[in-house]
Amino acid sequence: MYDGLKGFRDFYPGEMSARREVTDKIEERVRRYGFREVGTPAMERTQMYVDKSGEEIVEELYHFEDKGGRDVSLTPELTPTVARMVVARQQALQKPIKWFSTRPFWRYEQVQQGRFREFYQTNVDIFGSEEPEADAEILAAAADIMTDLGLSGDDFEFRVSHRDILGGLLESLDSDVDTTDAIRAVDKKEKIDIEEYYDLLVAAGLDYEEAEAFDDVLGTDDLDDLVDFAETDRVESAVENLRAVLAAAEDFGAREYCTISLETARGLDYYTGVVFECFDTAGEVSRSVFGGGRYDDLIEGFGGEPTPAVGVGIGHETLSLLCQRADVWPEEEVATDYYVLTVGDTRSEAAEIARELRELGHVVELNLTGRGFGDQLSYADGINAETVVVVGEQDLADDAVTIKDMESGDQKQIPIDEFPPDGGRPTYDDYE
Amino acid sequence: MYDGLKGFRDFYPGEMSARREVTDKIEERVRRYGFREVGTPAMERTQMYVDKSGEEIVEELYHFEDKGGRDVSLTPELTPTVARMVVARQQALQKPIKWFSTRPFWRYEQVQQGRFREFYQTNVDIFGSEEPEADAEILAAAADIMTDLGLSGDDFEFRVSHRDILGGLLESLDSDVDTTDAIRAVDKKEKIDIEEYYDLLVAAGLDYEEAEAFDDVLGTDDLDDLVDFAETDRVESAVENLRAVLAAAEDFGAREYCTISLETARGLDYYTGVVFECFDTAGEVSRSVFGGGRYDDLIEGFGGEPTPAVGVGIGHETLSLLCQRADVWPEEEVATDYYVLTVGDTRSEAAEIARELRELGHVVELNLTGRGFGDQLSYADGINAETVVVVGEQDLADDAVTIKDMESGDQKQIPIDEFPPDGGRPTYDDYE
Repeated sequence: MYDGLKGFRDFYPGEMSARREVTDKIEERVRRYGFREVGTPAMERTQMYVDKSGEEIVEELYHFEDKGGRDVSLTPELTPTVARMVVARQQALQKPIKWFSTRPFWRYEQVQQGRFREFYQTNVDIFGSEEPEADAEILAAAADIMTDLGLSGDDFEFRVSHRDILGGLLESLDSDVDTTDAIRAVDKKEKIDIEEYYDLLVAAGLDYEEAEAFDDVLGTDDLDDLVDFAETDRVESAVENLRAVLAAAEDFGAREYCTISLETARGLDYYTGVVFECFDTAGEVSRSVFGGGRYDDLIEGFGGEPTPAVGVGIGHETLSLLCQRADVWPEEEVATDYYVLTVGDTRSEAAEIARELRELGHVVELNLTGRGFGDQLSYADGINAETVVVVGEQDLADDAVTIKDMESGDQKQIPIDEFPPDGGRPTYDDYE
Repeated sequence: MYDGLKGFRDFYPGEMSARREVTDKIEERVRRYGFREVGTPAMERTQMYVDKSGEEIVEELYHFEDKGGRDVSLTPELTPTVARMVVARQQALQKPIKWFSTRPFWRYEQVQQGRFREFYQTNVDIFGSEEPEADAEILAAAADIMTDLGLSGDDFEFRVSHRDILGGLLESLDSDVDTTDAIRAVDKKEKIDIEEYYDLLVAAGLDYEEAEAFDDVLGTDDLDDLVDFAETDRVESAVENLRAVLAAAEDFGAREYCTISLETARGLDYYTGVVFECFDTAGEVSRSVFGGGRYDDLIEGFGGEPTPAVGVGIGHETLSLLCQRADVWPEEEVATDYYVLTVGDTRSEAAEIARELRELGHVVELNLTGRGFGDQLSYADGINAETVVVVGEQDLADDAVTIKDMESGDQKQIPIDEFPPDGGRPTYDDYE
């Protein structure tokens, strides 16, 4: 007997059917927004990730030398791959480019609640628009996905910020601040105590008064306070852009799910504009459910023409934790419309009925085992068959079949030329 | 600019939409048969493949030592993984177990027509029935998939055989034959000339007369000839089983696609009963399109209870070659129901209309770029929008929108309270 690898999961049919239902809902929604599916490889050159994220990313990668001597990695995320694809056909592709895909990714990380070494994401990206409508469409599509899954504004919120606000506020201070370290401190704030937070800010170059004032202004409800604090074009235009995105989100139906949260820093080097993270308002899912934002520099960094971009990567594992917490996770079981049960030598007629029912679009199983009546019925029960169609030798002698309702156990013989009808999904109740 | 890896492909939206359509048709068909989707990992311990296929398989594997010191491989096929999953829950799983999944697999091979290093398969398996109905259901589901895709019996055939016929015929000869080598020779027959074929049979231990007689009986149309030639129980029961499977396939609607082809050997060690391969009858796809068969020993070999099994692995790359050859491959382009075009400051009203249309299930895009009328229309044309809904300031002043048919260019103003209606997908023609 073999074991699977730690952090890699097997999904049996019950759990898989729930996951499929959720994935289908997500994809159906983004398709309606005109996002187009792309298919991407599971492996890329390791250098691409190093160039984007620095040498330390290698620690998390499943990377190795292939038989051709290339240093290759299993893809830890989608964005570098789609950026590569945009660059490869940048002249031919009409803008805005709106792409999505659902697939597994791989990172060698500590396995914990909602975090695995193989994990699934639906990525949704827009390339080629710098307008606030693009940011807002990503927010709106993500919000629609959540409500399609049965979640409401009581269950989740999008904490929205702009990358230049934090950086701009820090830059406006008199002290010589290491912005990266300071933003890292803000990222950690919720996980550490306040003294430690202040120590980190001071270590990043702020003096104690600046740290206090900075922390204070981060908590404001009024974006004008930020502009007044910094008195720089950078912060002013960031605030203006954030307001424009929220106004577009209002038109697009997503504003009600958005909270301004300046502490949402969303990593360090990657994002360039509006950023957001989805959180469980009940706090049971302790980490961010998923996040996204604007990354206008990546395509150019990958050797392409300057191309603004905004997107979101929806992680299915944390999303399923939230759905379970909110009690909207689909039932984990298989469903079957009909089991066609044979008694005696009726395979040919039973198979004909099964084929006709399948042509109507139904899920139909029949006897593959040589089992008798009772064992077939028990199997039909196990696959949650709604209706059993008994095709017995006696039924056929009567030019009939017997329809059995599996919930009530009621059954009734009906003429074989009435079953199956030309359409619909007839059950016992249709023949009473 | 980065390159993708050789043998790994990027699928842009046009090609992807065709691939998605084909995958959806395949999966919809097997779901109707009651096959249940499973989700499986991309990585397993290398040892599992070595145990199943021998040390030489390692040459083809993407394998490496992970950071925990395990020798791991990207999955080159599905069967070992599902066998592991069956063994892990063999008591809890009701038989027959009917599973499918569609996913990529990876092998380090020479890239050629229809063969890539990353390739996609839909695997369909039944565990727990040794009855001919199980083999026949695999054949029937595969045949239905082909006809669902628009292929007919003029386009493809299933060449069906039984593993024990070749082995049994060879075993019945007087000479001491190396069966494995002789079957390998049969596998190669179509690719080599007849002298070379005979030489290989002789090298495998047959004398020349035996080779002639063996080759002769392989070409028979009458299965009784095989029984008479071998005069062994093994061949007799193999022939009986093959006949029973074909009789069940007749009832299940798949017999017409099956040709008995004793030379279909389908690998060496893996299969135990009926085997089959799908071929392009026009011969343009020179290799087998896909294949499958019965493998009753694998689950026990993996440490489980003896569990008969039969399945098929449908390779999407060769299948797409066949569909293209037969001119049934779906059109490779994106489709859009509506583009909602803004003129002036109408974003709010346009977004409202877009949302209503999406609620009706349609694919709807709107302006994310700040473009004017002409550029928006050109974009709408590029995404193959069927209908453009113009929401101009003048339209709104008239309490109207303008519906434009993108094929004819005809347009018409209609009252905004009539659009969108409560259902359907209204086009220009609905308002004439």
